[in-house]
Amino acid sequence: MAINFGSDNVTPACDAVMRAVNAANSGTAVSYGGDELTAQLTRRASELFETEVAIYPVTTGTAANALALSQLAAPFGAIYCYEAAHIVTDECGAPEFFTGGAKLIGLPAADGKITPAQLIHALSIAEDMGVHHVKPAAISITQATEWGTVYGNDEVATLAGLAKERGLRLHMDGARFANALVHLQCSAAEATWKSGIDVLSLGATKNGALCAEAVVFFDLSLAADFERRRKRAGHLWSKMRFLSAQLLAYLGEDVWLQNARHANAMAQALAQGLRSVSAAHVLHPVQANEIFVELPRSAVEALESAAFKFYRWPLYQSDRGIAIRLVTSYMTQESDVEAFIVAARRASGV
Amino acid sequence: MAINFGSDNVTPACDAVMRAVNAANSGTAVSYGGDELTAQLTRRASELFETEVAIYPVTTGTAANALALSQLAAPFGAIYCYEAAHIVTDECGAPEFFTGGAKLIGLPAADGKITPAQLIHALSIAEDMGVHHVKPAAISITQATEWGTVYGNDEVATLAGLAKERGLRLHMDGARFANALVHLQCSAAEATWKSGIDVLSLGATKNGALCAEAVVFFDLSLAADFERRRKRAGHLWSKMRFLSAQLLAYLGEDVWLQNARHANAMAQALAQGLRSVSAAHVLHPVQANEIFVELPRSAVEALESAAFKFYRWPLYQSDRGIAIRLVTSYMTQESDVEAFIVAARRASGV
Amino acid sequence: MAINFGSDNVTPACDAVMRAVNAANSGTAVSYGGDELTAQLTRRASELFETEVAIYPVTTGTAANALALSQLAAPFGAIYCYEAAHIVTDECGAPEFFTGGAKLIGLPAADGKITPAQLIHALSIAEDMGVHHVKPAAISITQATEWGTVYGNDEVATLAGLAKERGLRLHMDGARFANALVHLQCSAAEATWKSGIDVLSLGATKNGALCAEAVVFFDLSLAADFERRRKRAGHLWSKMRFLSAQLLAYLGEDVWLQNARHANAMAQALAQGLRSVSAAHVLHPVQANEIFVELPRSAVEALESAAFKFYRWPLYQSDRGIAIRLVTSYMTQESDVEAFIVAARRASGV
Amino acid sequence: MAINFGSDNVTPACDAVMRAVNAANSGTAVSYGGDELTAQLTRRASELFETEVAIYPVTTGTAANALALSQLAAPFGAIYCYEAAHIVTDECGAPEFFTGGAKLIGLPAADGKITPAQLIHALSIAEDMGVHHVKPAAISITQATEWGTVYGNDEVATLAGLAKERGLRLHMDGARFANALVHLQCSAAEATWKSGIDVLSLGATKNGALCAEAVVFFDLSLAADFERRRKRAGHLWSKMRFLSAQLLAYLGEDVWLQNARHANAMAQALAQGLRSVSAAHVLHPVQANEIFVELPRSAVEALESAAFKFYRWPLYQSDRGIAIRLVTSYMTQESDVEAFIVAARRASGV
Repeated sequence: MAINFGSDNVTPACDAVMRAVNAANSGTAVSYGGDELTAQLTRRASELFETEVAIYPVTTGTAANALALSQLAAPFGAIYCYEAAHIVTDECGAPEFFTGGAKLIGLPAADGKITPAQLIHALSIAEDMGVHHVKPAAISITQATEWGTVYGNDEVATLAGLAKERGLRLHMDGARFANALVHLQCSAAEATWKSGIDVLSLGATKNGALCAEAVVFFDLSLAADFERRRKRAGHLWSKMRFLSAQLLAYLGEDVWLQNARHANAMAQALAQGLRSVSAAHVLHPVQANEIFVELPRSAVEALESAAFKFYRWPLYQSDRGIAIRLVTSYMTQESDVEAFIVAARRASGV
Repeated sequence: MAINFGSDNVTPACDAVMRAVNAANSGTAVSYGGDELTAQLTRRASELFETEVAIYPVTTGTAANALALSQLAAPFGAIYCYEAAHIVTDECGAPEFFTGGAKLIGLPAADGKITPAQLIHALSIAEDMGVHHVKPAAISITQATEWGTVYGNDEVATLAGLAKERGLRLHMDGARFANALVHLQCSAAEATWKSGIDVLSLGATKNGALCAEAVVFFDLSLAADFERRRKRAGHLWSKMRFLSAQLLAYLGEDVWLQNARHANAMAQALAQGLRSVSAAHVLHPVQANEIFVELPRSAVEALESAAFKFYRWPLYQSDRGIAIRLVTSYMTQESDVEAFIVAARRASGV
Repeated sequence: MAINFGSDNVTPACDAVMRAVNAANSGTAVSYGGDELTAQLTRRASELFETEVAIYPVTTGTAANALALSQLAAPFGAIYCYEAAHIVTDECGAPEFFTGGAKLIGLPAADGKITPAQLIHALSIAEDMGVHHVKPAAISITQATEWGTVYGNDEVATLAGLAKERGLRLHMDGARFANALVHLQCSAAEATWKSGIDVLSLGATKNGALCAEAVVFFDLSLAADFERRRKRAGHLWSKMRFLSAQLLAYLGEDVWLQNARHANAMAQALAQGLRSVSAAHVLHPVQANEIFVELPRSAVEALESAAFKFYRWPLYQSDRGIAIRLVTSYMTQESDVEAFIVAARRASGV
Repeated sequence: MAINFGSDNVTPACDAVMRAVNAANSGTAVSYGGDELTAQLTRRASELFETEVAIYPVTTGTAANALALSQLAAPFGAIYCYEAAHIVTDECGAPEFFTGGAKLIGLPAADGKITPAQLIHALSIAEDMGVHHVKPAAISITQATEWGTVYGNDEVATLAGLAKERGLRLHMDGARFANALVHLQCSAAEATWKSGIDVLSLGATKNGALCAEAVVFFDLSLAADFERRRKRAGHLWSKMRFLSAQLLAYLGEDVWLQNARHANAMAQALAQGLRSVSAAHVLHPVQANEIFVELPRSAVEALESAAFKFYRWPLYQSDRGIAIRLVTSYMTQESDVEAFIVAARRASGV
């Protein structure tokens, strides 16, 4: 089997999650989220986040993000984010669909992290233009970012302060939230509402679930009518227990952090190895489980021929070579990492 | 545990489906539907329907219906259906959301089945009103219907002929398609495209799957861009293999029909028993796995007290009593049926 | 020239309105509603309605209704109205478009007036069905109604009380508000907010304007962000002075009521004359400027041949004959009325 | 009265247009566009563009653009344009609203003109990303551009060739089309369909109309169902004759070109004068009726104090001073231009 650094979503579900799904498959249960496991999930999430939260399981990260944003921005609203954020480039317009037409205003960002100065400038344009401009409504940040970096809690808090001052809401796309949390070495509460996050898209699929993500509201007033939005988007499962069971297993007993710790460690090993390859340029700080590395075109082609799986990254352009993205996961083996480094060195002709 | 006739979606997944999900949980797989199981599913569905189909797995019946209809009706389109169809009353506006605002035009219907005469009248109004009226685009029928009845293939073909003549498309909401098929004793092809159906929402969740439905196109040109619609609705699973695995198991080796046969047989037994209770009035022909029965208020209350689960049906009003809905499933036991009949007789004081 | 009872919108603009438009065409003016005439309009409307209102001019009744409703109902909301209300049958889905998919729930209504009992029943269904059902959000009534009748202020107040009790908002489609007001012989305040109306679509085009309608909010909090909605719908004129000028002339110095008084008087004369034709059946109380009358098919055909303009009414079906709609306007001449009555009598062979 | 270079939309309607509106105000006319003037308009536009066109009058440029784009791009579509195009920055999300959520993909552009190379790169990203990316659907260019420059017909044709090759449609936002045409010194046909334009938003309001724009389709198949879109957006006037009358007068007998010639000539005079002011930097080629000029902050403040009307331009940032926009119109007087140049020289302290 090919060694696969293509994405963390090529993995199966981890044992703990799969056991929970099987265990949930017994007897009748109230449908549409009235079951016991779903109630337990809310209790567990509230415990974990150290505050009362509203948590709504859904199936995909796109659904989580788009539903979350639709609670924050009116159809005539503006959502500020990184110009190559997942919500901008990878969701086929889902945020626009779910919000009824809100506009994502993309900001350039070194290492994928947007800054207060950019936002202040963008907001001043909106203010100048009045009703001709969409109404500033929310900021969305990705944690870990699209470039495998992680916002510090202080950076999040600064954005949150600005958001609060201007009457905006702050959303976190946490498709790889566990990987960020492991890097930050802080509590889930500190990484979210204690830093000013209003709503979190909490990913699990990439890190060991079968098909589970969740929208977590820390400001419960923002969750009003969320259930109707989820229903009309076709994201209210009748047999919800199977979705809640995954998240309960994932968030229970450290499964999510164990999985993420492993993925992050493999990413560190991979980055360290690649830094020793002189033709390779690791492009951003490696803080989660994604590595972007620039290699000579011939090296990239050789690695592809050797059946390693990874993506050439279309958003990065350079004269020196080709940027590829490598993603590690809870399934990545040390031997996979070593094999790739050896092959990369050979392919670079060094 | 209470005997539960509340819905067929309170059931767990059946063994065949669950085994398939576990079997799929091995090794890496191409994400977003590029996996082998998804390819197999298309082949299996094409074999089953005796023609090349495009089949797209999704998670809920609401998603299947709303996505299907969004391919058929423009935002300024009209979709004709039974006035109490699931798409009208139970999906919190999903068809309006996915189509961008198309209008469901509800027609009254004895036993839940709409007729050509009604459609012809409704279409003549549309024609008279020109651009002031939404544009006739599609007809949607439910099979089995919301009242547990089943359209004959000839009835479907007549509606299809009218649709074709007027340039409309014909959609079938087959949330309980297997139950209808068992009643019709015909092939899946005869019950669909051979009778003129353009697109089918094929249900599996109620009849033994964990969380699997599918949109099946018989006219492949109607499937254009469907994948983008699914993606932007957040219904494209990254680990699609787990969804395709369910449908493969469900449609393979007669699982779906066995499950439906059992559910239908239990419904027949239940109906027969209730017809022997003089205070009970079975309201519609029982042709699938739903029974609507009118009982004196005191009897309904007694049955509820006895911990039987079922719903009082809000859309039915009568002076004589209360209508309740009983749904059987692949899990219903003969002893459940008998217990209910005995209790109903006792509760009716006969 | 044919005598035209087809609609009140076949008329030109009245002299007062046209003079005002010409007068406004002088020198530069701040664009997008920052001009002096628009400010005057708000003052005049507030004086007229005896309370501070927010008034937003738009070009068509469809825009006024759909924009108003989009402030009241979320995309997952329900708007209760008469089943053949203009917003249901004549606006090509504009309310669905502007609200992002809200559902119009049509209720049958004698003489076009919906009742509290119907609403209470419809709301109880919504409550039973929870998140599966769109969320009750607003009631919309048409004044004068689609059948030329007029709600009494007490009837409006009763609906408003119910709305308030259930947390719904009450919208009035006043495409022919002036005609209703003349019938009610009360103040504009009494006919609206004093009877519990939250938002009024105030028509002027049918009653003498060139192209002017307005959305009037009596609860100013409901007007939040309305300007952005209007802008993104393409309904914010750059040269707004020309729209405000029409409404100022219309609402100033009794023009609107004089025009409506004439139209209503002509309708009374027409109805009275037709009641003397034995083959004619006037179908509803004639309280504004629309008359629905059933005539033998041969009579209708004869009148059409005689070059009278009117519409056969598609929503009315009868075995006895054909229903036609006759609309009078500020331009209708007594001689037109007399000519029609003479012709109708002759055509009926009496 | 202040000398007003704020915008060309602060002007009144020109005499020819106003006479036509008054002339149209006579007798009854078929409503909703069935009138004689509307039919004449189609004939006149077809003559002018030297081909059979479908022309639909609407009230605002925002409506024209958003309606046109909604015919070209599905809700999951991508529309490529200049990153600061009017449709991106000034229409409060109207294109997203009318298309049901399509994404405007903004490209940077010197002088406001996008290039084939940029498009080719953007399209290659879309292709790489498949269903995760919105579907390339259309290109929209502004003529004259937002910076007062004009695409050459050869530049348009090159973009059109690329569009055709890739299956995209080409839209022109011609809010100031007449000004561009005067600059190009070619026929309306050459500037549009002969250069590959599929749909034109034809502006008239800024150049002498009261409230009239039009959507002009050169490929008639693209106009299918346009009337329903216009109706449901509330942009179908009942008294359409008043809208068609404006456009007929505007496009008849050279009125539009005379008005634009004057505005362009005034812009040339203003630019020439400002180029003689050493502290002033004219920022782009002046090819239509807009001038962007950078001045020292103190000079801008002095000009504002002197009651000249113009806008500071928020999208332009510089260390040297402030950019202002000056717009000339058919009403601009030579003496206005001279007064401004004198004042600018004095304010710059030269």
